[in-house]
Amino acid sequence: VSRPRRADLVLVGFGHVGRRFASLLGESRPALLAQYGLDCRIVGIATRRMGARFDTRGVEIAHDGPAAAHPAAGSAALQVITQLARSSDADLKIVVETTVLDIAAGQPAIDHVRAGFAAGCHVITANKGPVAFAYSSLNREAESAGVRFLFEGAVMDGVPIFNLVRDTLPLIEISGFRGVVNSTTNHMLTAMEAGETFGAALGRMQAEGIAEADASLDIDGWDAAAKTAALANVLLEAGISPPAVHRIGITESDAARARQARANGQRLKLVASAARDRSGKVSASAKPMALPATDLLAGLEGKANALILQTDLLGEIAICQLEGSLTQTAYALLSDLVTIAKQPARRGAPAR
Amino acid sequence: VSRPRRADLVLVGFGHVGRRFASLLGESRPALLAQYGLDCRIVGIATRRMGARFDTRGVEIAHDGPAAAHPAAGSAALQVITQLARSSDADLKIVVETTVLDIAAGQPAIDHVRAGFAAGCHVITANKGPVAFAYSSLNREAESAGVRFLFEGAVMDGVPIFNLVRDTLPLIEISGFRGVVNSTTNHMLTAMEAGETFGAALGRMQAEGIAEADASLDIDGWDAAAKTAALANVLLEAGISPPAVHRIGITESDAARARQARANGQRLKLVASAARDRSGKVSASAKPMALPATDLLAGLEGKANALILQTDLLGEIAICQLEGSLTQTAYALLSDLVTIAKQPARRGAPAR
Repeated sequence: VSRPRRADLVLVGFGHVGRRFASLLGESRPALLAQYGLDCRIVGIATRRMGARFDTRGVEIAHDGPAAAHPAAGSAALQVITQLARSSDADLKIVVETTVLDIAAGQPAIDHVRAGFAAGCHVITANKGPVAFAYSSLNREAESAGVRFLFEGAVMDGVPIFNLVRDTLPLIEISGFRGVVNSTTNHMLTAMEAGETFGAALGRMQAEGIAEADASLDIDGWDAAAKTAALANVLLEAGISPPAVHRIGITESDAARARQARANGQRLKLVASAARDRSGKVSASAKPMALPATDLLAGLEGKANALILQTDLLGEIAICQLEGSLTQTAYALLSDLVTIAKQPARRGAPAR
Repeated sequence: VSRPRRADLVLVGFGHVGRRFASLLGESRPALLAQYGLDCRIVGIATRRMGARFDTRGVEIAHDGPAAAHPAAGSAALQVITQLARSSDADLKIVVETTVLDIAAGQPAIDHVRAGFAAGCHVITANKGPVAFAYSSLNREAESAGVRFLFEGAVMDGVPIFNLVRDTLPLIEISGFRGVVNSTTNHMLTAMEAGETFGAALGRMQAEGIAEADASLDIDGWDAAAKTAALANVLLEAGISPPAVHRIGITESDAARARQARANGQRLKLVASAARDRSGKVSASAKPMALPATDLLAGLEGKANALILQTDLLGEIAICQLEGSLTQTAYALLSDLVTIAKQPARRGAPAR
């Protein structure tokens, strides 16, 4: 048995997802060592509010933040990334990106990902912004730097989408997809078809912590559009960004549409979809659609998400997430970490 | 770029699945070479009726059988496997097993798999028998021989189940599963709840080529029980065989049950399931169950199959096959071939 490989991680962003990832990583230490020969340490944390903290011996993770935060001049993120690159002698240097996303521009996540590559570090992120706005250029930069760029958590949390296609569907050509990938709107449409008003449904989602206080990104369809762009970029090489997705959110008038659909034996769902036409052009949309009851997507209730892939050799196949929680998002990052442990340099499979 | 690796294949069994695999392999040659640096040749074919044919320069595949069949004394299968081991100098030697299965014993597939390992060859099979009856011992034999044993096609054709768990769900503990994995009974239950009789539904399935002339293995639940055992052995390390699965097939009386379920807002489905209890014991069943309409499995029509996995970190996730055909089964073998190309020696991940 060879000696364990050491992985040094810096966490850029330390909110709910980053904290749950840190605790899940702690719980998974014995299994990571036993199964993958990987010895992981968190050596740095950067947050907007508390600045940067870095220690090659590992930072102490207090329950509600870095144990002793050192407010830093300049960008805390760039600081810990640079320190990881310069001060760590680990076999694997990994930036874990979980900052709050500006969905209109994909920032600051894109800058953090790019800084990671420039410093020669692998980058894993739970943010959809980098993949939705800049997949092809980031992918090229990662390849040039000889590092991995992984983002399983960008869509449907830790349920494998990108890993499914990359690792288990060799030689398959994907021509399109359709899915339900936004939980807030799915919850609301389910409530509205049962008779609740738009306002009441939204208020209840916010009270239950399902929707954000500012739920406009969900309701206006931006979250679904960003996920659609991310999926289209990776699975269909679309090279688009979210504004190119034909986007229709849900409004008060959808309460009546949802009830009418139900009365007709249909279900109203916010469907994210994209397809490549014969000329190779990809068109993408995220909009409410009345689906026949027999459609797999029609049956998804509440937090359930699903993605149907249209393939050449397997016809239509689907993967579904029946529950969602913070642990699932944190697991996405953990699975990306294992992907790097198994294959620090990409090989074999083609660029998707 | 390094020189392509050569893979020599012998086909043990050359019925519908074997033939479609051979043609799919031909169609996939350029992609296998370009993406995986793999140069594949079929150097042997063994069938019960036509005997063995072997040629290290590659055998000609005629449309309806080996171009010139040489009836052989003894077992044609063992003959071509031995010839592959002795006469081929390829980098990868692979036995592709697709014989007609005796589902009551898993034979002759188990003997063929074992002979492949004994000869130092990788084995891929579309048969569920070996995994359902002898998974743990075959797995040990493959490890001792330093070769791979792969069987993605054993359940739900080419839709990744075993590859999904092995390659994309690291560190996940699976505690159980439930699924609809037999298409004949699913078709029949759908027809029966719409008012067709058992006999009429069965006759129509046979006329349409969905059910075999002898459909008893489907109807009696043996096919579902064998798949349940296969899944339980691999995903739950159950160490069981199909007779240990609590098995109830479908009968004429299920027509009334199916209609009654539908009238109650439920759907009657033949559900394959298994779970590990707290003591570690796995109980498994394959039997008709009335499911609430909101259950993902309730919505599966006709050829659609699905498997729901119960996991620790991701809750329940599901993978669905919405269509099924010979190409999908052949693709399962092709995906196993790529797995061997990517990783001829198993490493990293734990034994499942």
